[in-house]
Amino acid sequence: MSVTIKKIAKDLNLAVSTVSKALRDSHEISAETKARVFEYAAKLDYIPNPYASSLKKGRSGNIAVVLPEVADSFFSAAINGIESIAHDKGYHTMVYLTHEDVQREQSIVREFRNGRVDGVLMSIVANDEKYEHLTELYANKIPLVFFDRVCESIETASVVTNDFDSAYAAAKHLIDQGSKRIAFLSMPGELAIIKHRHQGYTQALRDHALPERVVFCTDNEDENNAIIEQLLTASDRPDGIIGSIEKVTMPVYKICHAHRIAIPYDIKIIGFSHLQIASLLDPPLTTVTQPAFEMGKAAATILFKALEKKYNLKNERIIIPSVLNVRASTHTMSIENK
Amino acid sequence: MSVTIKKIAKDLNLAVSTVSKALRDSHEISAETKARVFEYAAKLDYIPNPYASSLKKGRSGNIAVVLPEVADSFFSAAINGIESIAHDKGYHTMVYLTHEDVQREQSIVREFRNGRVDGVLMSIVANDEKYEHLTELYANKIPLVFFDRVCESIETASVVTNDFDSAYAAAKHLIDQGSKRIAFLSMPGELAIIKHRHQGYTQALRDHALPERVVFCTDNEDENNAIIEQLLTASDRPDGIIGSIEKVTMPVYKICHAHRIAIPYDIKIIGFSHLQIASLLDPPLTTVTQPAFEMGKAAATILFKALEKKYNLKNERIIIPSVLNVRASTHTMSIENK
Repeated sequence: MSVTIKKIAKDLNLAVSTVSKALRDSHEISAETKARVFEYAAKLDYIPNPYASSLKKGRSGNIAVVLPEVADSFFSAAINGIESIAHDKGYHTMVYLTHEDVQREQSIVREFRNGRVDGVLMSIVANDEKYEHLTELYANKIPLVFFDRVCESIETASVVTNDFDSAYAAAKHLIDQGSKRIAFLSMPGELAIIKHRHQGYTQALRDHALPERVVFCTDNEDENNAIIEQLLTASDRPDGIIGSIEKVTMPVYKICHAHRIAIPYDIKIIGFSHLQIASLLDPPLTTVTQPAFEMGKAAATILFKALEKKYNLKNERIIIPSVLNVRASTHTMSIENK
Repeated sequence: MSVTIKKIAKDLNLAVSTVSKALRDSHEISAETKARVFEYAAKLDYIPNPYASSLKKGRSGNIAVVLPEVADSFFSAAINGIESIAHDKGYHTMVYLTHEDVQREQSIVREFRNGRVDGVLMSIVANDEKYEHLTELYANKIPLVFFDRVCESIETASVVTNDFDSAYAAAKHLIDQGSKRIAFLSMPGELAIIKHRHQGYTQALRDHALPERVVFCTDNEDENNAIIEQLLTASDRPDGIIGSIEKVTMPVYKICHAHRIAIPYDIKIIGFSHLQIASLLDPPLTTVTQPAFEMGKAAATILFKALEKKYNLKNERIIIPSVLNVRASTHTMSIENK
C-alpha cells in the first residue's frame, strides 16, 4: 500500500493538516510532534514529492530572482531582503544571473513561462532594448515585480529609490564643496535608474550654470579602466565625479591612486553604492546609499501579496529614498569616520 | 486534443528531439528553428510543465546552493562560479541562506529529501554541531558536494583551499615583518576551515617560539565590535592580527581608525578575504585570497559529473591554493598598489 499523509495521520492519531505542516517543518508545529512525524514517515519510507503536489496545487513553491550579478553589494543586500521574506512564506528562492547579457536574460525568462516558478523579481540588464520576453511573461500571468532596474514599458509593480533627487543632491553637494567641472560616469543602454540619475545631475548643473560632461563606461573592465584613465590624465580633468553605479566608481579610486591624484584635493568623488566598507576606503568614499535590503524586502512582499490574493499587479510604484553619506572623498575638512 | 511535443514536431515537420531541444532553448538548435517552434507552440497554447516532465524523468533540473550569507565577497564569487557551470548544464540554481543558524540549515536541508533538487552544494554554518540532517541527505542518495566549509564527518566530495598552509604563511609573513604578539581572530564552533587556519597559525608561532593568543569573535556585530575594541585598547595590545574570516577583519580597521591606531606601524593586519577592493582600503589590506570563483566552479563540476554519470560521490577532496597578497597593512616600506 502506498504511504500517504492520511495513513501517517491515522497511525499517529494526528490531524492530516498537522502531519502535512509537520512534514513542511512549519513553525506552527511543536518540535516534539515534528520529530514523531519525521521518524514515523522515515520508517515508512514516505517521501512527498513537492512537484507532484505542485502539479495538484498548480504552484511550484519557487520564486525567481533575476539579477545582473551578485558581486555588487547592492544586489547582495537585496537578495538578503528577498530571501528573508521568501523563507518566512515557505517559498524557495531561485537566483539567476544575467551578467548584463540580454540574450541570457531572454533565455532565463523564457524558462519561466512553464510553471517552474510562481513569481519573478527582477532587475533588468543595462543594455536591454527589447522587452518581448518580459511582455510574454506578463501575458502569461506570472506575477512580476521589478526592483531597482525597472522596465518602464511594462505595467506592473516596482520598487525603486529616488534616483533623480539623490543624483541632484549628489551634484549639489559637489557644487557646494567647490567643484566646477563635474563629470557623470554613465552606462550605455536604456536603464531607467541611469536615466533618472543623469537627469538629476543635469538639472543640478543647469540650476548652477555649470557645464555638463557625461562619460560612458562599459561592462568590460579593461575598457573601463582605459576610459577612466584617459579622463583623469587629460588636461581638462574634472574636479568632481559622480559614479552612477558601484562598478564605475572603484576604478576611479584605483586610477587616482596609481597617478597620485589626491582625493578630495585634486578631485572629489561620490559613488552610488551600497558598499558597507565605504568608510574604510582611502579616503572614505562619499556615497549615495540605496536601501537595498529594504527594496528587496518590499519587492518580495508585494510579490507574495499578489500570489496569495491572486490579484494582478498594477502599475504601482514604491519609492524608498536613498541616503547621501558625506565622507572625506568630497570634503576637505576633517570628518569623523562613520 | 491535448497538445504534445509530438504534434508540434509533426505539424512543423521536425524531429521530436529537435522540438524538445528548441523548447528548452538549447544552443544546439538554430535561432530560426527555435523561433518557428516557439511561435507555433504559443499559437497552440502549448506550455510544457517542467515538473510534470521532472516526475517522468525523476529529476527536477534544479541544484541547491546552501550558504551562510551572500554579503560576504567569498560567497558572492563562489555563486558566480557555481551559476556559470549550472547555466551551461541547463540547470537552475536555488540559493538558500542559513545566516549561520543551525536550525535554519536543518529546515532547509530537510526540504531537499523529497526531490525538489537533484544535488546540493553546501558551505555549512559555523556553529554546526549536529550533522543528522546532512547524514540524512546523504542517506537519501542526493549528491552533496561541500565547498570551503566542509563537514568532515560526512564522506563525500569537497572543494577546499589550503587553509593550514596559508595561515602558516600569513603568520610567518607577520613574524618576518617584526610582529611579536600576534593574535588570531577566530570564530566559535567546529568549522574545519577555522580549525585548520588556527593550526597553521599555531604551528608558525611555535616554530618561532612566540606566544599564541586566540580571540573568539561572534556573529553579533555589536558584540564583535566590543570584543575587538577591548583587544585593541588594552595595555597588552597585539602588534599583529590575523582575521580568520572577512567579517572579523573589517571591524579591526574601523576600530583602529576610531582610536587612531596606525596600521601598519602600531599594528599589522592580514585578513582571509576575497574582497576585490582590498587594495583601496586605508591602508591597502594584506589578504589571504581564496580562489572563490574557481572553488565554486570546481564544486559544481563535480556535482554535475555525479548527476550525469549517476555515481556515488566518494570522499575525494580537491584543494585549490589561496594566494597571499602583501599590501601596506603589513608592510612599512612603500608598496605599489596592486
